[in-house]
This record gives sequence, C-alpha cells and structure tokens, in this order.
Amino acid sequence: MGAEQKVLAAMLDQDHYSRWLGIIIDEYRVGYCRLHFTIREEMLNGFGIVHGGVLFSAADSAFAFACNGQGKLTVALDASISFIKSAKAGEVITVESKELHSGNRTGFYDILLTNEQNELVASFKGTGYRTAKPVCGDDNEKAE
Amino acid sequence: MGAEQKVLAAMLDQDHYSRWLGIIIDEYRVGYCRLHFTIREEMLNGFGIVHGGVLFSAADSAFAFACNGQGKLTVALDASISFIKSAKAGEVITVESKELHSGNRTGFYDILLTNEQNELVASFKGTGYRTAKPVCGDDNEKAE
Amino acid sequence: MGAEQKVLAAMLDQDHYSRWLGIIIDEYRVGYCRLHFTIREEMLNGFGIVHGGVLFSAADSAFAFACNGQGKLTVALDASISFIKSAKAGEVITVESKELHSGNRTGFYDILLTNEQNELVASFKGTGYRTAKPVCGDDNEKAE
Amino acid sequence: MGAEQKVLAAMLDQDHYSRWLGIIIDEYRVGYCRLHFTIREEMLNGFGIVHGGVLFSAADSAFAFACNGQGKLTVALDASISFIKSAKAGEVITVESKELHSGNRTGFYDILLTNEQNELVASFKGTGYRTAKPVCGDDNEKAE
Repeated sequence: MGAEQKVLAAMLDQDHYSRWLGIIIDEYRVGYCRLHFTIREEMLNGFGIVHGGVLFSAADSAFAFACNGQGKLTVALDASISFIKSAKAGEVITVESKELHSGNRTGFYDILLTNEQNELVASFKGTGYRTAKPVCGDDNEKAE
Repeated sequence: MGAEQKVLAAMLDQDHYSRWLGIIIDEYRVGYCRLHFTIREEMLNGFGIVHGGVLFSAADSAFAFACNGQGKLTVALDASISFIKSAKAGEVITVESKELHSGNRTGFYDILLTNEQNELVASFKGTGYRTAKPVCGDDNEKAE
Repeated sequence: MGAEQKVLAAMLDQDHYSRWLGIIIDEYRVGYCRLHFTIREEMLNGFGIVHGGVLFSAADSAFAFACNGQGKLTVALDASISFIKSAKAGEVITVESKELHSGNRTGFYDILLTNEQNELVASFKGTGYRTAKPVCGDDNEKAE
Repeated sequence: MGAEQKVLAAMLDQDHYSRWLGIIIDEYRVGYCRLHFTIREEMLNGFGIVHGGVLFSAADSAFAFACNGQGKLTVALDASISFIKSAKAGEVITVESKELHSGNRTGFYDILLTNEQNELVASFKGTGYRTAKPVCGDDNEKAE
C-alpha cells in the first residue's frame, strides 16, 4: 500500500460523515480523487431535489482526500460552488477533484460534479492550507 | 400565520436533509433567518472535527429559508464559504442569514456561523436567482 | 464577420478599461475567449508585483467577452479568484476563458491565467446572468 | 506616526495601480480601512458602466491595506465579489474593509462598496495568508 493509500485509509476510517454520504472512491493518487455516491431520500431539500449542502459535502470530501494525499495535514480555507443542474433521489453523482497547484503551504483544487448523463451538476473550487503536521499523526490542528 | 411563515412551513415540511441536520429555527422573517443545530458524531470528518460540508449545509439551509421568504421560488446559483475555526461533537452552532440585497431576479445573502463562545466558525455568501414560480406552487424548476 | 465577431467588436469599441489593460484577443468564438496582455509599471502594487485587481480585471474581460458572444447582454453576478503565483512588470499573461455551462438565463465560466512559462498565475470563476436585451442594442441594463 | 500608519505609507508609496485608481484613504487602523475613489471614463467597460475589475481592484486595495496593518506581509489567497448595482463615470464609490478574523497565519476580510446614495454596489470577501516577513522589510515573497 502506497503512502497516499495509507493516508486515504486513515482519513476514511474515522470519516463518519463521508460514510453517511455513501461515498465510494473510484480512483485515488496524490492530488487526485474521483469518487461517486447515490442521492438518497434523506439528502433532499424542501423542493424534492438534492440539497446543495450534500453536493458541496461530497465535493469537499474529494477535495480533502486529494489535498491530504501528500501526507501533510491540510485544512480547507475557502471553498466556492456553482450550482448548475439539479439532481433527484436515485441519481449517481460522480465527483472528480484535480489539483490546479500544490505548494509548500497552499494547495488549489478544482472539482466537477456530473450526473450519469455526464452533465455538469456543480463546479467547486477549494483552497487548502498545509500545516506542519502529518495526516497520520496523533492529533490535529486548525489553520490557526 | 404570515405569508412568509407559510413558506417556511412548506419548505421545512419536506426538507429531509435539514431535518437530518437537526436544524431549529430561532427567528424568521422575509430576508432573515437565524437557526441553530448541534454537531453530532456522524457529522465529523476523518480528523474528528465537524465536516466542512455540514457547516456549509446549515448555512445553505439558512440562505434558502431567507431568500424564499418573499414567496418566489429562489434557487442558489453560487455560494462560497471561508472556514475560520473548527468545531467538535456536542457544540451548538448558530447560523444567521442576512439579506445584503434583494432584487426582482437576484438576491445576495451573507451568513455567519458562530459557536457558543460567539466565536466565528465560518463565513458564507450566497447568490440566489428568483424564478417566476411561487414557493408554495405544485412543482419547481431549476435556474435554467 | 460572424455574429459573435460583431458582438466582440461592439464591446471592444467602447471598452476603455480593457484598452487601458492593453488586452489583445488571440482567439474568440461563442463561449470561448483567449487573450493576453503585458504587465506594466502602473499595474504594480506596493510590493512591486502585479496588483491582484489587474489580474482579476483581465480575467473579467475575458469572461465578459466569452459570455456575451451568444448575443444576449449578460452581466456578471459573481466572480472569484485564487492567486497562485505573482508576476512582475514585463511579463506577458495569457487568459483563457472556457464555458462550463450556458443556459437560458445563466452562464458559468472557468478562466485560467498563465505566464510565459505556462505556470498558473491565477484561477478565476464567473457566473453571468443573461438579460433579455441584445448586446448590440441601444442601451443596457444591470441584472435587476 | 503609529506603526500601522508607517505600514500604510510604505505600501502606498510604491502602489502605482492604487494611485491610478485615485484611491483616497478616509480612515485606517489595524484590520480596518475605509477609502473612496471616483469613477473615470477610462474605468468603463464596453457597456458604458464601470468595469467589474475596477470595483474589484479598489476592494482588493482596501483588503491589502487592512490585512497588512499588523506588520506581517500578508498576501491574498482567495477573493470573491458579487456585483449588485452598476455605477457610471463621475460616481464616488466608498469601500469599507472590516476584519472578520485575524489569526497567526490567515486573515479573513469583508469589504462593502457603496455609492453616494449609500446603495450597495458590490460585496467582496478576501482571505489572506500571513508570511513571516515584515511589510516594511527589504524584499517580499509570494505565499509559496
């Protein structure tokens, strides 16, 4: 198992919320993550479509996995999302996270969410700050 | 019950995910919403702190409630969040959504998330697009 | 001259600020624009590097050109930028604007800024709202 | 002259682009900046209204002044802007930058742009990364 696979396993093991989302990792390497999940009834908002927070959450997980793969604990500073197309219960959403740039202290990621017809559902951008701590250490810190 | 309270009741009634979040509305009027929720185990990420997606989700719900209060179905176009302080299971997060501007077709909202010590946990900004349909009508549409 | 070239000519003709920026269009079609400009002394901030506002401005112009090419006057609602690498006077910056999605009422664009070494300088995302007016009409309106 | 006034003077002295914008500082202290400028012909876009990049630029300057006042050289990582109301040549725009949070390594700022009727023209959010270097040192660095 490569170092980045160990990081992913360590992160997923305790990630209760990603498990609630039903996230399944399809491909993973340093700086890259592709995953999918299926929209369930309990993920819907008052208009019968997927809650924007659920789409954001799946993208945020892909972002976290992609930017922590290099081993330094990286925390999200900023994230933005554009909602392009709605989705309903039963639909499978694919989330692909690519690294735009990775530096010593910061990392910039671009994440696209698509449905089974390969239509764009949402576009997410995230900026992470790399702390000095290892992902697989004993404890964690926030950016400050 | 005022018109905006009817809108809120209609939205909440079917909002499975906001119910999963455990959202409790504290104050509500057209363009304004204050709510709170308590972080649970299943909302945590792999680092033992609240998943960023959960914070975003609660803000997104407050945003949706605030911008739909005027009665026209409003969909989120863009949202951005800055993560300032982490939070743990058991903490109560208050989410306050204020209207920066409300026009015929668009609405701009500023949402702050604070913990019980009144420290800023995250800052959220959302832009909504007002469709021609009423919130309490029979069906809904996405922006396009 | 195609319809979108007419739109571009009409926009550029009166665009004093894009002219100040020294923008040169390299490629243009509906939903797409690639341009470049050279950083001048008067574009620098107090630290001797290009002012972030200048990078944003060039991206915002590329965004405007790309999203107005279809002929309906489109105004920017939201834009975000991540600053990845600094740049100095004399450097040539290329700005490439791609359409993520174009709908009846909204358009989503992704813009990358690179230097002569093809390194990413900044990443920009923009959301536009399409009004009912033609770009080449007599007058204009804001989103509201 | 207080330390933060010395920082401001040092930044402004070399800030060619803020001078081109015609920025005048109205109030300044650590974490806070209020300034104004007047929209000129050469700041207009192809639709005869102020170019979005000019509004962003003035906000970005206010952000830079506010976040560098504490003395550590701080670079912008991410910024987002929502365009709410257009503005024309001759209008005076006031830009007010407030600190949402200031930490050891990061700072979060909220900036509002208003016209002479005190109407909101745009809303800007910025995240800065504090380097270890002093603002008034000999040389500078980018985040990486």
